[in-house]
Amino acid sequence: MTTSSKNAAFGAALGEAAEAVDTALDQILPKPEGLHARVHEAMRYAVFAGGKRLRPFLVLQSARLFAVRREQAVRVAAAIEALHTYSLVHDDLPCMDDDDLRRGRPTTHKAFDEATAVLAGDALLTIAFEILADPATHESASVRCRLVSELARAAGCNGMIGGQMIDMQAAEAAFGADEVMLLQRLKTGALIEFSCAAGAILGEAGAEDEARLRSYAHDVGLIFQITDDLLDVLSTAEKTGKAVGKDQGQGKATLVSLLGIDAAREKAGALSRHAIETLAPYGETADVLRALPPFLLRRES
Amino acid sequence: MTTSSKNAAFGAALGEAAEAVDTALDQILPKPEGLHARVHEAMRYAVFAGGKRLRPFLVLQSARLFAVRREQAVRVAAAIEALHTYSLVHDDLPCMDDDDLRRGRPTTHKAFDEATAVLAGDALLTIAFEILADPATHESASVRCRLVSELARAAGCNGMIGGQMIDMQAAEAAFGADEVMLLQRLKTGALIEFSCAAGAILGEAGAEDEARLRSYAHDVGLIFQITDDLLDVLSTAEKTGKAVGKDQGQGKATLVSLLGIDAAREKAGALSRHAIETLAPYGETADVLRALPPFLLRRES
Repeated sequence: MTTSSKNAAFGAALGEAAEAVDTALDQILPKPEGLHARVHEAMRYAVFAGGKRLRPFLVLQSARLFAVRREQAVRVAAAIEALHTYSLVHDDLPCMDDDDLRRGRPTTHKAFDEATAVLAGDALLTIAFEILADPATHESASVRCRLVSELARAAGCNGMIGGQMIDMQAAEAAFGADEVMLLQRLKTGALIEFSCAAGAILGEAGAEDEARLRSYAHDVGLIFQITDDLLDVLSTAEKTGKAVGKDQGQGKATLVSLLGIDAAREKAGALSRHAIETLAPYGETADVLRALPPFLLRRES
Repeated sequence: MTTSSKNAAFGAALGEAAEAVDTALDQILPKPEGLHARVHEAMRYAVFAGGKRLRPFLVLQSARLFAVRREQAVRVAAAIEALHTYSLVHDDLPCMDDDDLRRGRPTTHKAFDEATAVLAGDALLTIAFEILADPATHESASVRCRLVSELARAAGCNGMIGGQMIDMQAAEAAFGADEVMLLQRLKTGALIEFSCAAGAILGEAGAEDEARLRSYAHDVGLIFQITDDLLDVLSTAEKTGKAVGKDQGQGKATLVSLLGIDAAREKAGALSRHAIETLAPYGETADVLRALPPFLLRRES
């Protein structure tokens, strides 16, 4: 394939993943009903906010490498996106990052109220595990249990939640590059890693394949963070739909503030090459995954 | 056994359950470590607050009916108590019930801060599923998956979270007995029901036994709510360690406010007799479970 046809294939795959996971979530999330309909409404409001669906894309594409049935991969993608959405809803709360806008529209606690946002987040976290444990997700209960275990670990107090805890203390802390990379690895890296590992787990692929996908995910997670930081420094409010320069305003160290813009770009480039090399054993099936790191590098422009 | 020796056996069983689940949680919950130690500390602060451990007691005793290995039942009890604790931490938040004290000491957001309390709650919810999915909980992955599914359902947006959502709207709503009973069934009943059903699930006992345990749990949950409401009306701050008359002060309907004290007591008595009859097939093994409803009825004095 030429570069431009690869780009087109990548864009199409990203769009397809978003469509597939949105359809699945619409079917899985409860319809607003009963005296507690408000929590159902808030769950849907938070989930259907037009996100990039990067994690579902990673699940679907990693699952393709191991010939996983698509409807199974889509369910896991839905679980991860529900869990990712919960983390955004709670992170936006006044006692956390105190954000009024996300993707250009009111955050869940602004559109509803704080109590409803806490509960909707709790419910999205809970339903993620319900989705994974359901027999429709995989015929083997052992595989389903591994998905539950690995997601709980990735999202828990030594994963994503631990990362957010560190982030809450970051404004007052004098973090160096090691601490900032740990923060990123936990806060966003753990769930990205699970998204990629999920394909290997669903396909019962074995430890070597799983480790390869985790390594790829590790690179992608770091590229994502660096380009996010670059966006934060360079972009304008119109493009991202959220307040710009926020991390800098709060005095938080980032890889970009620590390394400088040029060195951070260079690091992201090296990670991109490494991520692509990691996928060598999978041939053309991995072309779409290979297109992701360059796509992320282009985000800032 | 005489009534007094039955009471002694019940008290001993309640104490043993508390000790067993506390030991397990101390082993399972992460030791405070790393840049994110604060969330580990808050999890432990919230969990080790001297609760009655009613739900662990129900798991252990229902598991005894089906000859479940004790260490397996203790792990499920630990998962349920972690999840129950998360619900208390989030319910106490300023945006929810806004409680400064629980069991006579500062609530988690008072002892730490709101962000840490939200995260510690999230982490306790997450670890509950990690505990259940772990092979140490049961040798059969199908059983572990059922535990995950059933807990997620009991705790989710059509279970406990749904109940809390209704409760948040209760002050403004003109609820009748049906709505109040639905609120209770979701908010506290669902988790009590799962605690009792867990014994049957762990023992792979089949649908009839599970239904019996769920019926017993349904009665116990309602007795618990009625006696809690009676305590709220009748007791003093010293005895319960939390603000008294709170529900009434907020204008929320309760079964006691709707039925009156005498009729509520009568209803609780009838539920107690029904719960005890339900356990008839299990002979003496169920004696301790049979002692629970009368114990709850005596709470108010």
